[in-house]
Amino acid sequence: MATIVVEVMLKPEILDPQGQAVAAALPRLGFTFAKAVRQGKCFEIEVDGTPSAEQLSDIERAAETLLSNPVIETYVVRVGA
Amino acid sequence: MATIVVEVMLKPEILDPQGQAVAAALPRLGFTFAKAVRQGKCFEIEVDGTPSAEQLSDIERAAETLLSNPVIETYVVRVGA
Repeated sequence: MATIVVEVMLKPEILDPQGQAVAAALPRLGFTFAKAVRQGKCFEIEVDGTPSAEQLSDIERAAETLLSNPVIETYVVRVGA
Repeated sequence: MATIVVEVMLKPEILDPQGQAVAAALPRLGFTFAKAVRQGKCFEIEVDGTPSAEQLSDIERAAETLLSNPVIETYVVRVGA
């Protein structure tokens, strides 16, 4: 059983009010490390066994068509533990 | 400039209707690879330079207090590119 993680983030040129709210809240709580924060979605997809090349290209297509909106979002596919 | 990624996922025992909706939609679109899908949030936090041990422990505390609800969610902190 492998876990594939698809991370979907807004493109850098798209305004991200959720990330801005987090970036504004951090200093109020005493955390000063953040220069910028962006918030996105992630999907943990469980597949049987080690994912084949065909499955990975299927996952890429699913990430592009169902999991993200390619007009405003980018995605990264990662094979997890 | 380093990017720290905080992934926040619902605990396995917590119902995840968003993930279930994705898992139900994938076969309708012809994708049969997924055994289960869970959806979560991710935060990309930009910090100056290489994060120090102190900054990383600050980020852990921020992830626990602001970015996640430890009653129903778990988080993972990853140092990205």
